[in-house]
Order: sequence, then structure tokens, then C-alpha cells
Amino acid sequence: MQRTLTLQTTQHIGEVVKLQGWVDTKRDHGKLTFIDLRDRTGTVQCVGYQKMGELTPESVIEVVGQVKERPENMINAESATGAVEIDVREYTVLGKAGSLPIPIDTDGSEIAEEMRLKYRYLDLRRERMQKNVRVRSELTRALSEALYEREFVNIETPMLTKSTKEGARDFVVPARLQPGLFYALPQSPQQYKQLLMTAGFERYFQVARCIRDEDLRSDRGFEFTQLDLEMSFPESRESVMELVETVVKQAVTSVGGKMQQDPFPVVSYPEALEKYGADKFDLRTEQEKKNGVLAFAWVVDFPFFKKVDAKDVAEVRDGKSGWTFTHNPFSSPIPEHIEWLKNKEHIGEIITAQYDLVCNGYEVGGGSIRAHSPELLTAVFEIMGYSSEEITEGVGHMLEAFGVGTPPHGGIALGLDRLAMLLTGETSLKESIAFPMTGSGKTAVMQAPAPISDEQLRELHLATQLPKK
Amino acid sequence: MQRTLTLQTTQHIGEVVKLQGWVDTKRDHGKLTFIDLRDRTGTVQCVGYQKMGELTPESVIEVVGQVKERPENMINAESATGAVEIDVREYTVLGKAGSLPIPIDTDGSEIAEEMRLKYRYLDLRRERMQKNVRVRSELTRALSEALYEREFVNIETPMLTKSTKEGARDFVVPARLQPGLFYALPQSPQQYKQLLMTAGFERYFQVARCIRDEDLRSDRGFEFTQLDLEMSFPESRESVMELVETVVKQAVTSVGGKMQQDPFPVVSYPEALEKYGADKFDLRTEQEKKNGVLAFAWVVDFPFFKKVDAKDVAEVRDGKSGWTFTHNPFSSPIPEHIEWLKNKEHIGEIITAQYDLVCNGYEVGGGSIRAHSPELLTAVFEIMGYSSEEITEGVGHMLEAFGVGTPPHGGIALGLDRLAMLLTGETSLKESIAFPMTGSGKTAVMQAPAPISDEQLRELHLATQLPKK
Repeated sequence: MQRTLTLQTTQHIGEVVKLQGWVDTKRDHGKLTFIDLRDRTGTVQCVGYQKMGELTPESVIEVVGQVKERPENMINAESATGAVEIDVREYTVLGKAGSLPIPIDTDGSEIAEEMRLKYRYLDLRRERMQKNVRVRSELTRALSEALYEREFVNIETPMLTKSTKEGARDFVVPARLQPGLFYALPQSPQQYKQLLMTAGFERYFQVARCIRDEDLRSDRGFEFTQLDLEMSFPESRESVMELVETVVKQAVTSVGGKMQQDPFPVVSYPEALEKYGADKFDLRTEQEKKNGVLAFAWVVDFPFFKKVDAKDVAEVRDGKSGWTFTHNPFSSPIPEHIEWLKNKEHIGEIITAQYDLVCNGYEVGGGSIRAHSPELLTAVFEIMGYSSEEITEGVGHMLEAFGVGTPPHGGIALGLDRLAMLLTGETSLKESIAFPMTGSGKTAVMQAPAPISDEQLRELHLATQLPKK
Repeated sequence: MQRTLTLQTTQHIGEVVKLQGWVDTKRDHGKLTFIDLRDRTGTVQCVGYQKMGELTPESVIEVVGQVKERPENMINAESATGAVEIDVREYTVLGKAGSLPIPIDTDGSEIAEEMRLKYRYLDLRRERMQKNVRVRSELTRALSEALYEREFVNIETPMLTKSTKEGARDFVVPARLQPGLFYALPQSPQQYKQLLMTAGFERYFQVARCIRDEDLRSDRGFEFTQLDLEMSFPESRESVMELVETVVKQAVTSVGGKMQQDPFPVVSYPEALEKYGADKFDLRTEQEKKNGVLAFAWVVDFPFFKKVDAKDVAEVRDGKSGWTFTHNPFSSPIPEHIEWLKNKEHIGEIITAQYDLVCNGYEVGGGSIRAHSPELLTAVFEIMGYSSEEITEGVGHMLEAFGVGTPPHGGIALGLDRLAMLLTGETSLKESIAFPMTGSGKTAVMQAPAPISDEQLRELHLATQLPKK
């Protein structure tokens, strides 16, 4: 018989079943041993003979026994299987557990992060973490399915690619076969997704792995995942926003999320600053916070450019002219400001066709109508002080693509980690990621980064130059 | 009005429609210009006035016009929209195409690979490539959905991780914040997926991006994608094979693939060598080859270990004892040979609980029942000559995980690139990947790998040591 713990009905009474799972709790009562056996579907009480006292908590066992009705006074109304118990005839230890390095019967918040993540395979057994990971999976499924239904094509883009000028530092990968040269890991599939519009796919999406070498924050690692989409021939920015809103609502509803306003309110950037003091804001009432409501809103009408902030190294590097982009250099301005961009006038006043999706005080998505003419994209980089050689080197392939019949297009990237975090009522991104990095950039469970051998360094034609201690 | 080219019915006749798409072909007939307008759904003939003669092939245009019935003698029965034409009233150029660097009205096989991939955004406009990319998307959708339906949880695993001893070279990523240390990009999520079994998810899958620094072959780049899955408590290797077979059949059938034998034949490794001379073989008849049939088969009973082949650098590095694994060091032997492994006897005769899925002469998947006890995994690495320090350093975290209650488990990795290639009748993996690498390891479209700045090298505490020319 296959394993199951879906014994909440009484129709299995009398059957002999074979169950497999973890020893959730154990209670020795003289000659009898009571085990709560746990698997992914729940727990069930097993009553066994004395020898079962040998079992250690969290060991994996197989139990063969008869399903019995509990006496009336022993029924546990709080458990889905509380009306029955398994009268154990035999059992086998499939995977013994020794002493546990971290407790898993708490919510985990009392444990140092390094320890939680070193033993993540245990940490994930918490009911809360099981739920978080499963909700994220269902959210991914629902978002993907909503897009497939609307004829979006799921297309993978390269992981070993080129620096894409998106404002943050790249992680680089030495190319063994081409000494001295490096791939960059993608900060986002921005350019590839636009090229897929040039290629005529019209509707693209991807659950995209993105990697940025940014300074770590307590709740953020180097990796993140975005639900990335792009579409051709949008009537306006509003038509992309409308499609995204429909998809988000469908997906969030299907995984049980409750949303506040429908349609999502649209707030202009100046209005957001005035009313909320920031371009990310929380529209929930106290009561809605308690009820786990998600309050989505759109923010539009951002300035395209801003004066370079000298504190931001990555921006300064790209911003010799004193101007840099606020959101995305590949955006178009709003239609009314296209001439300004072409003429490089009123630079600080040019409004980008960008739209951010915010939820409960977080930015959960950002997108725009893109520039799709060589002239516009060139003007953006010229305003940021790029020479024509640098423009060719950086985005020459995009300019070429825009010269072979590229349709108007726009899209968005939704932060899957953040959406999953908000849906599960968490406040740290790490609680919605199975194996997040530690705050010091270590990979969960495994000791990475790690040294590599001299032979590997030689093969890569590299030498390390360590700072003096 | 929204765009559409689904005008194959005559119910639109008389309507004024707005269409957007690419100029597929253009014919000037004196005062009239005939345009075949193409979008993702097909083409439709547009008849316009002389000025449309300005349009260049592959330009993106918007057309407003009336749908008219064609005269009987002008009906094109070979086109889905051949009974109608659009009488153009006005048109706009949305994205002008200049001269095209590569032709796209051929199948592309006459064009040098470097050119095809440099201009991939054009190359992908070929009908064949459009179909290939869309079939791959539908295959991914169908495989994922078949697994979601069976309660598999979609879980992402890290891209920045640690070397995982899987036989090939790792790509490494210098850690700026931890000078001298490197992450490795994942060759597969093997260890993480096993740890998810320890974590109690019981059923995991992922469309996993994998990256290996292997010497390039004409049809293979450094990146590949696998449909990766793992499940706990399999009754036997056959029960995993059965589930995988069901999922593959369901997905392949749903995207229109035709399969040969049902159930898939199971061939032992010795039998395969004897009958076909290899562990990958093609069971199709000539007629089935013409009909695009997929002939799947399982291969089982591989030896666990083999003598190290001195030509394989990566294997020699791991094989000080003279033995290395044939498939996967994390596998279990078949139940009958577990004692041999523990006792390190009959090493060359130990059979692994590995199963390969082959199709039309290619290996399209490989998996196994895993070792889930510290004792077995340790014995495997000891046989391969690892010292106890090296074992702790390499897989100590796995041994620890096996000591906190790990269930028996097994799984498989299906090669999504290969499955998509076979489904679309292609013979090169590159035809089933949107942006594959060139044979010399260059990223499609973008000039990567590329030099990085001295400043970036300094930040990474690295220096390049180029070979003398």
C-alpha cells in the first residue's frame, strides 16, 4: 500500500496501512509508546509497543499497522486525524536522527542566522517554512499559468552573458578558454527580452534568475528571482499595467491572497512624495495589516534622469555627465517628452514611461514602455555622458536590432521573492527562499565562497592579490 | 481595436481592422502594392496604394483597413487567411528595417554560425525557429504541470554555490567581499535536491539552469537546462522510473509528440552493449525516423565504478585510487550490492541503482535511487581515494544531513534542451535554445566574454596572467 496520512475520514478503519514519515513527537506511557508520525500531509498518532521507545525525534520510519477508531474520550478534535490512531504491528527505521544541531519546534527566530542557514535542511522542516516554500511554488505556478493562457512564451535567456549597464555591479566569471576575458552573470534579462520582441515572439515571460554584486542588506542576498515579461504592440503604458494587474490578481487570488483595492490605485510620483513621503508606501489600515491584506498600487510619472549621487559607485561609473537614469536606461519617455529627449532639453523634467508596482510598502515590480528606435536609446546614453565608442561597445547590438524592424514594446519584472514574502506574511526575503545566503554572503548549507586550487587559478590565467592584513 | 490576424473566418468581412506586424513580402503591381503582413499568428495580404512601395521587408507597420472577400479566382487555398485581403486605408511605420545582415527566408543552415548567433534576434524570425522556441515553452509547461498535479513542489536552488564534485569543471565566480574566495556555478542541483528530501518536501522539481566548464562540442555550449526532480520513499527504482515515464508521456503527448513503445522498454547495460554496442541507441525503424517518432527506452544496471581514464582531467583529479564513478557518486548501489559497497569488495562488479532514459540515440535523462546513509556515501568517496578530511570538506554537510532523519529518495534530471531538440526534429541542441553560445564559447548577440576594467580586477583582488603569445 502506498503511504498516506490522509486518514481524517473514518473509512479506513480496520485497514492495515503502511505509513512512512518522521517521528514528530514521542511519548512513553509504560508499556505503550505513542508516536506522532509526520509527513507532508499532516500527522497521525501511532501506538506501539515498548521497543518503539528506541526511536529518536525526527527519525524517518516506516510503520505497518491497523487503523483504529479512538475511544470517544480520546478523540482529538484539533487534529485532522484525531478520530483514529494506528495500532503498530511492525516498524522499520529508514533514516535515524541523532541529536539535532538546531531546534525545529520553535519559529526559528531565536536562532542565529548562520546556524539556521547552515542547517537549512532542518530549518525548512518548520511548519511555517514548509508553508512558505509551498506557497511560493503555487504562486510561481499560478503566475506562469496566467501568462501561458494569454499566449506568453516561456523563453530562457543566458546565464553567462555580458555586462548590461543596469546600475549595479556585475558578478563576473573568468573564461578558461579565453584567457583574460570574463562573462558577466545577468542582473536581469532586460536586453534579451527586448531582443525577443525584435525576434517577433510578441509575448515573452521567464522566471528569471538574476544576480547582482550589491552590498548585502540583512534581508537580501546577491540572488533574486523575477517573473520577467515583455509584450509587443502595447497601446500605451496603461495597457501593459492592465495586463500585469490582471495576471497578478488571478495568481494572488488563486493562492488565497486577499487584496485591497480593485483596480489598483495609480499614484503619480510627485503625488506619492507629497502624500506618503516616498515612492513606496503602505495603504493598509491597521485592521488590514492584521488580516494579511495585500494593498497594491501603481506609481507612475517618475523623472527619467537624476543628478548623479556621488555615493553610488556604480552610478558614478556610468554617469560622467552628471546625469544618470532613475530606473531603466532602456525606457522610453512618455510620448509628450520624446522630443525633449531627442533634443536633450529639459533633461531633469523628462518623465519616463516607467511604472512601479508597490505593495504594503515594498516595490514588488517595475517596468516600462521601452525605447525601440536607435535615436532614442542613443540619446539616453549620450545624456549620461557616454561617448559614441562607449555606446557602440555597450549597446551597439541593441541599436543594430532596432534597425531591423523592432516593434514598440513594454514589460515588467515582478519580484517573486518579495511577492512570496508578502503573501506568506513574512518581513524578510530570506523566509521565502529555500536556500538564501547569509548576511555575510555565504551560501546556505555549503561553505561557499571557498578557496580554489592553484591549478584552477592557473587554468583560468588568474592570480589572487590579497589585501595586506 | 486590438490587433489580430485570426481572419481565417469570413465573419470579419466588411469590418475595419487595425493590424500590426512585419512586412513579410512586398510586391509592387503598378498602382497597387501587395504586402503580406506577418505577426505571431500568421500572415494576411494587404493591398495598398502606391506609397506603400516605400516599405522595406521586415519593417514593423500598423495598418488600418477593411477586410474584403477576395474574388473567387484570387483565393489562396494554401493560406489560412487566403479568402480575404485587407484594403489598406492608412498605415504607419512603427519600426523601420534597413538592410538585413543575414537572410531569414531560408532555413539558415547556409549561414556561418557566428553570424546566425550574432544576429539571433533576426535568425529567430524564421518559421522553424519560432516553432522550436514555442514547442520548448509548451514542453516546459506540460512537464511542469504534470509534476504540479502530482504534488511536486517547484523550488529554486542557489546559482552561487559550491563545487559539487560531479565530474566536470566548475565555472567559478570571484567573491568581491571575500577576497581570494570563489563561488562555483551549479553543475546541477544534485546536493540541494537531496537536502530538500531531508527537509521533508518529499516531492521537488525545478527547471534548473546548469553550467559546466566542459570543452565545447559543435552542438553544445556551457549552459544547459534540466527538468530536475526528486522524490522521497520510492518503493524501488522502478517506481521512480514509472512516475517519470508517466510524466514524460503526458507532456510529450500534449505537445503533439508521437512515441514508439508503451511502456518504454527497459534494457540492461550489458544487453545494450551487446545488442547496440552502446548505452545510447536508436530503436526507430527507417519509417519511424521519417515520421518523427520518439523511441524512448530505459537503460539500467550500469556498473557503479570504473577505472579512471587518464585522459579525463576532471576524473583523474577525483580519482586517486584508480576508481571513479560512472554516473553519480550520490547514487545507491542496487539493494543486492549494498554490502559489497560497505565492505569495498567486488568494486568493479557493484551495480548502481541508476537509470538512464534514452531517446532516438541520445541520453535524455539520468537518475538514481540515492545513498541516504552516511555510511554508504562515505564508502563511495573512500573507494574513489578521498581522505577523510577531503570527504568532510567535500560532502560533510551531506553526511550531517543524513544523520538528522533523511528518507530514502531518488530522482532524475531530464535534459530539456535535448527533449526539445528531438521533439522539433532537430539534430543540434542549438536549434532548441533561444540564445545558444557559439562553438567558440561566445554568448549569442553580445560580445561576451569580454575584458573587464582594471578597477573591477582590483576590486576582486585578482590579476590576469596571460599566456605568452
